[in-house]
Amino acid sequence: MDIQAEMKQKAEAAKRAAARLALLSTDVKNKALLAMADALEKRSEVILQANELDLEDARQKKVKRSYLDRLLLDEGRIASMAEGLRQTAALPDPVATGDYSTVRPNGLEIRRVRVPLGVIGIIYEARPNVTADAAALCLKAGNAVILRGGSEAIRSNIAISSLLAKAAYKAGIPEGAIQFVDFTDREAVDAMMHMRGYLDVIIPRGGAGLIKHVTENSSVPVIETGTGVCHTFVDASADQDMAIKIAVNAKVSRCSVCNAMETLLVHQAIAAEFLPKLVAAMTEKHVVLRGCERARAICPEMEEATEEDWSTEYGDLILSVRVVDDLTMAIEHINRYNTGHSETIVTKDILSAHRFQREVDAAAVYVNASTRFTDGFEFGFGAEIGISTQKLHARGPMGLMALTSTKYLIYGEGQIRE
Amino acid sequence: MDIQAEMKQKAEAAKRAAARLALLSTDVKNKALLAMADALEKRSEVILQANELDLEDARQKKVKRSYLDRLLLDEGRIASMAEGLRQTAALPDPVATGDYSTVRPNGLEIRRVRVPLGVIGIIYEARPNVTADAAALCLKAGNAVILRGGSEAIRSNIAISSLLAKAAYKAGIPEGAIQFVDFTDREAVDAMMHMRGYLDVIIPRGGAGLIKHVTENSSVPVIETGTGVCHTFVDASADQDMAIKIAVNAKVSRCSVCNAMETLLVHQAIAAEFLPKLVAAMTEKHVVLRGCERARAICPEMEEATEEDWSTEYGDLILSVRVVDDLTMAIEHINRYNTGHSETIVTKDILSAHRFQREVDAAAVYVNASTRFTDGFEFGFGAEIGISTQKLHARGPMGLMALTSTKYLIYGEGQIRE
Repeated sequence: MDIQAEMKQKAEAAKRAAARLALLSTDVKNKALLAMADALEKRSEVILQANELDLEDARQKKVKRSYLDRLLLDEGRIASMAEGLRQTAALPDPVATGDYSTVRPNGLEIRRVRVPLGVIGIIYEARPNVTADAAALCLKAGNAVILRGGSEAIRSNIAISSLLAKAAYKAGIPEGAIQFVDFTDREAVDAMMHMRGYLDVIIPRGGAGLIKHVTENSSVPVIETGTGVCHTFVDASADQDMAIKIAVNAKVSRCSVCNAMETLLVHQAIAAEFLPKLVAAMTEKHVVLRGCERARAICPEMEEATEEDWSTEYGDLILSVRVVDDLTMAIEHINRYNTGHSETIVTKDILSAHRFQREVDAAAVYVNASTRFTDGFEFGFGAEIGISTQKLHARGPMGLMALTSTKYLIYGEGQIRE
Repeated sequence: MDIQAEMKQKAEAAKRAAARLALLSTDVKNKALLAMADALEKRSEVILQANELDLEDARQKKVKRSYLDRLLLDEGRIASMAEGLRQTAALPDPVATGDYSTVRPNGLEIRRVRVPLGVIGIIYEARPNVTADAAALCLKAGNAVILRGGSEAIRSNIAISSLLAKAAYKAGIPEGAIQFVDFTDREAVDAMMHMRGYLDVIIPRGGAGLIKHVTENSSVPVIETGTGVCHTFVDASADQDMAIKIAVNAKVSRCSVCNAMETLLVHQAIAAEFLPKLVAAMTEKHVVLRGCERARAICPEMEEATEEDWSTEYGDLILSVRVVDDLTMAIEHINRYNTGHSETIVTKDILSAHRFQREVDAAAVYVNASTRFTDGFEFGFGAEIGISTQKLHARGPMGLMALTSTKYLIYGEGQIRE
């Protein structure tokens, strides 16, 4: 059978499963999640064997060490996946919760309740833990899921998804609810992107290239996630010690993630005093600095930043630095170069703080805190399926609620419209 | 200048306007809406002259009478447009309203507030009143709008949009906030669909062909609207007089709109008693009936329904009728053939009602009321920009809230992430 035909079969099975899954009680879903967690731990040797084969292939291709690290599974990481499943079981179920209710003058009673989206496609890259995380969140919100992981983790993903699906179906989840695409061909991704009518949404998770490819070519609705060119603006009135602490945290605590800072902007009034302190603190953490002309006039040890730097997500220990005239220029810079993810101002001035929050266009706009907090757990939603950088449907960390839609239930006693 | 370049210029101007528009007070927006309403009424002769030229062209093309009626403007219809603008001014402003607020254990204060989407593209067909309605709703929700109406109403639309834009800009709305695409070429639509990064969403309003073209080819996110294959299911326990009243209302009160009924399903236990009454009531209203075999065995005067009928939105005085074994078969039929718009059950049985509402997959699921109520005004949201039949972002009637996104505002005192 060809890829198109097999993908269609998967999608049809997912759609059938979704109709039944939407009606399951929270109890059944939670028990399934716990059984899935147990299955991962009990059969960890199956996963580890598969993972070892993936790792061998990757080593032969002489990939980067950080890449190998993303791919690697061990007992600890499998336990973390299982723990994620159990945490998802503990989260409140959004399905059937109401968020609007009214009685119209004609007596019609209108309620709006949350319903699952239906069938969700997740297209992702290296990390095999996404397989478990995504399956858990989609299931808890009552959705069927079609998972398509990267080819480099194909054996690990097949092992994980098979264990999860088997455990779920045994616990009463309809067959077809958790499916993994075992084709590594690009054709499978393209088939998914054109399954309008079967898939209700596709969420790509991974590098900018993958996300661009999916958002530009999918006829299925897409939620754009993940790329983050995040800024810290150090205002004239900033507590400079606080600013250094926040900047170092935003850059260094985990530089490969999307909520890490890529560019620091500093008000010209304090640049001469602040920048040497920043350089010292960042250099100590092995961060390479790339400055604009004015920044380099103060700290010539910085490399030269080019226009391209302002829109680059380094994902690495590199920081671009720019001296700005004032708050207006800082906001303009951010709104021009950011990706709509997370931005922060360090300031003591309430008017600057207010204006920054109003005028900066991003999912999360901070005052006196690190951008690293943009995350489902830190925001209090529990695990997230990704961080949306678009404005439609969901913006910022997407928890269970973002995996639902709504339905109006209307109760009448024979009303007709005049 | 070519179409691509000019469209890009429009989009850039809209994006600049959107940044300023997002910050305007409700007062300024409301005053602009009232000034726009006045402008339409005071300069109605300009609109009527333009409309007469559009009508002449249409008459020469010998279009259908109903088509001419959609195109026609008169003083009364212009007054209605103006009234729509004034009603939009009176609606509550969704921008900056909060819908989530929490303090995290680390002291971070997180609020989620409504923000405009940014730049909205509306692609629509014949009715020139959409120009005013869409401009008003987008403006009130703080968005810039790029309007692209049908070629048949081009002169009317240019007249209306010019008056609206001029009045708005004079009242303090940034230039570029209300733009009309005066190219009638299809190329302009295609250019709009690929302006990712400038347009935040496209909402197509019109026939199934237009909507399919846009949803399948746009790289800008799309909200699918409007097509409605709506059903009425008459259960075994139904109050049959109520069922007739609801069915006639759902079919006849305005058969060209998306919330009108296209197919009636009746439980086999009462079909022999109910169908002759239905045929009498519908025939009196000049409705042509097309029945399944079992329906025609009872009422042979019905035409024969084919498989195609079950998925057809007639938009006309035609009704397909099917006898079903039971509630299960009714739900299966609906979930197979519907477009996710509006469905209703007529029943006295609380269990049937509950199951129907839970299991039917549609934006609005009614018990004992006409599907014709699915509408922004009837639901209490005021004017609507369309009725979403997709699950992402908004489902059902889309009022001002559906034209907004969210933003997280986080207030800290130096918090960093461990």
